[in-house]
Amino acid sequence: MGTKQDRAQQLAALTAREAARRIAEGELTSADLVAACLDVIDAQEEEVQAWAFLDRDKAMLEAKERDRRRQRGLPIGPLHGVPVGVKDIIDVKGMPTGNGTPIDEGRRPFEDATVVRRLRDAGAVILGKTVTTELAYFHPGKTRNPHDPSRTPGGSSSGSAAAVAAGMVPLALGSQTNGSVIRPAAYCGVVGFKPSFGAVPRTGVLTLAPSLDQLGIFSRSIEDAALIESLMGPDDRDDDARENPGPLTATTLAEPPVTPALALVRTPFWERADAAMRDAFGELAPALGDAATEVELPEPFGRGVGWLGGVMAAEMARNLGHYVDRAPDQVSEKLRELVADGRAMRAPDYLAARDMQQVLRDSLVPLFHRFDVIVTPSATGEAPVGLDSTGDPVFCSLWTFCGMPTISLPLMTGPNGMPIGVQLVAPPGQDARLLRTARWLVRTLSQEAGS
Amino acid sequence: MGTKQDRAQQLAALTAREAARRIAEGELTSADLVAACLDVIDAQEEEVQAWAFLDRDKAMLEAKERDRRRQRGLPIGPLHGVPVGVKDIIDVKGMPTGNGTPIDEGRRPFEDATVVRRLRDAGAVILGKTVTTELAYFHPGKTRNPHDPSRTPGGSSSGSAAAVAAGMVPLALGSQTNGSVIRPAAYCGVVGFKPSFGAVPRTGVLTLAPSLDQLGIFSRSIEDAALIESLMGPDDRDDDARENPGPLTATTLAEPPVTPALALVRTPFWERADAAMRDAFGELAPALGDAATEVELPEPFGRGVGWLGGVMAAEMARNLGHYVDRAPDQVSEKLRELVADGRAMRAPDYLAARDMQQVLRDSLVPLFHRFDVIVTPSATGEAPVGLDSTGDPVFCSLWTFCGMPTISLPLMTGPNGMPIGVQLVAPPGQDARLLRTARWLVRTLSQEAGS
Repeated sequence: MGTKQDRAQQLAALTAREAARRIAEGELTSADLVAACLDVIDAQEEEVQAWAFLDRDKAMLEAKERDRRRQRGLPIGPLHGVPVGVKDIIDVKGMPTGNGTPIDEGRRPFEDATVVRRLRDAGAVILGKTVTTELAYFHPGKTRNPHDPSRTPGGSSSGSAAAVAAGMVPLALGSQTNGSVIRPAAYCGVVGFKPSFGAVPRTGVLTLAPSLDQLGIFSRSIEDAALIESLMGPDDRDDDARENPGPLTATTLAEPPVTPALALVRTPFWERADAAMRDAFGELAPALGDAATEVELPEPFGRGVGWLGGVMAAEMARNLGHYVDRAPDQVSEKLRELVADGRAMRAPDYLAARDMQQVLRDSLVPLFHRFDVIVTPSATGEAPVGLDSTGDPVFCSLWTFCGMPTISLPLMTGPNGMPIGVQLVAPPGQDARLLRTARWLVRTLSQEAGS
Repeated sequence: MGTKQDRAQQLAALTAREAARRIAEGELTSADLVAACLDVIDAQEEEVQAWAFLDRDKAMLEAKERDRRRQRGLPIGPLHGVPVGVKDIIDVKGMPTGNGTPIDEGRRPFEDATVVRRLRDAGAVILGKTVTTELAYFHPGKTRNPHDPSRTPGGSSSGSAAAVAAGMVPLALGSQTNGSVIRPAAYCGVVGFKPSFGAVPRTGVLTLAPSLDQLGIFSRSIEDAALIESLMGPDDRDDDARENPGPLTATTLAEPPVTPALALVRTPFWERADAAMRDAFGELAPALGDAATEVELPEPFGRGVGWLGGVMAAEMARNLGHYVDRAPDQVSEKLRELVADGRAMRAPDYLAARDMQQVLRDSLVPLFHRFDVIVTPSATGEAPVGLDSTGDPVFCSLWTFCGMPTISLPLMTGPNGMPIGVQLVAPPGQDARLLRTARWLVRTLSQEAGS
């Protein structure tokens, strides 16, 4: 058993790219990979609780179908045979999609979300649904941090981050309306990538706040995060999905033509960073040397979090208010409060906040004439102890509000052995250069550490 | 003098297409045409009061420049040498743009609106600025109806409609947030065409309600209305301007492949139609015979006007509220009330109305599987007597709300000799087919009348 388990862990720990390569070249079957992932889940799930739904038999059947397809010499996609976890607010045909609330228990969509259809087109095996917080807002699900089960995995994409961190699956989809990809990625020590607003269609995904909702991916390498390119591109049923900053992989794998210029931005929220994050940034700045320049954001950016909060409250009141009305005793107090706040908001104040979204985005443009990316905390620090909160998204809010592509890298470790995430942010559309710079940064810091 | 005046009137009465053709072929100079228009203005302006600003010398200089360009054999555009009036909420470099309020008196934009730049690129001569109601809302400007100066020309594009009707200029630009192109066109007896939402960029135009604001054109023929194609197409600075339903002219001039199918829609607002409009529609239905079918819109469409009102109030409170705050005694009571209403509106109610905008638009799609266009009143009937109101836009609201292309045709005459407008509506994007059907309708009815 020990040997079987070891082998399962090794297979399941492959990056998605490496797994796809081996499957394509006949060195590995999708069935073996999926079985290995299921073995790791069997071993870990009791502690981690990452999954809202799993259908082991169906996953194995799909994996075998993928293997037959390849054996017959039919064309295969970039994710052929690779298992993927899907956050439980994203519709998968044939699986229940419960949106993290008892109110939607047993809800079974008739149709795949656009991203799920594109995953299948790329050859992926949909392994199951990962735990989300209640309606992808703050009230936690059952998931625990794989690095320390007494700590939160972050939210709202809790299960996706934890499943990738625990070696259960190489890739998982999540969503971010405030900090729901970057924060759990940081807390769980994996790569979390949220592309530019408008890059990944949201058709078939629970709508929280359409001006803010964005999809993202969890992975164990930056190159794997680039695989989200298969999901990008316009969709007739999501008016905001008009952009396609892909393809990503070729640029991601390339060398930067010159040394990237990094803006080290502590943000107006720096005082909320914990000691671990302060130490991490204290080390990071000298390690980056000339490549990094400390930049202070002027005052209006500090107000961005409040504006995002207003837009979120108003739009979530519109889109999720009916849950509160139908079953007030089945929703969390936090959600009830948010809906009440949103319902109290005046329309012109909402519109003013929407205007500021554009103003802040435009105001950041000149910074990116001088710098390739912003380097900033992913979260306030280590994943907090306790499972009754999913932590503070404040270091994500501004970039979500402005629709910037952003990635969290598990670059440092805190005093309790918990991962500390560093966030890189690029201007809208520069997703590929963001990933390229991220790879350069990881390489540079590891050479630094080795020297 | 009589002869000179007669000749000026004849020249100024040319359609824009015919004038452009003669200029292109050297049969007419732009200078003669512009001089003729200025002569008509001299004769009529005291009564009609269509212009907020005119610079006769500058217009003549521009016309002569156009003539020299043609004489040198340089390439010329489809509006080469043709004078155009521009509503005074649209920025024209070198002319004051007063937005119909004393608060903006003497405001001189540094830059042309995108549509003005495109007009110039097409060769047009910007003759001057036409009168708008206060901030393009309901409070009237000085303009009178050319058919009866005791009656309103309609609003808010009052001067543009009146100037074209009075023979002062063959083309004029207007805008419509509720009924500001179609209604004045109907009252003044000219063609008014408002293309699909998103077709004509609004950069450099006063923003009232960005979810509703649309530009349009006044002309004396349907073929001339098609000339707005020169102004269509995406603009980097207007996110909503992403569509281009043009080119229009070739389709407009073509024969319909089959007899068009018309849906005669009296709308849920029919009881607000006056006796003249009821009579006009009483004649129209039999005249159209088999081509037209009476169609009743189900209940939710009746609520569209209320939803448009909510979106308008909230967005105008956001965008024009500062006028009320800065100079409450310099704005009309109607505007003060609107801004107060908008400020009282709750954000989720605003968002619900925005959602209904999409729902209503989608709900109309199946109707256009069976019918080419909707035929419906342009206004409640004849232009009302009195200059203290600009009339009721209710027959325009639904189509504006849904962003449908729509055209008002001066097809009938009321008992007081005033024009009665008939409105044709097509689904978003079908602007060219709308114009083609409009031409067919005019021809069919005139044959009917002659037979």
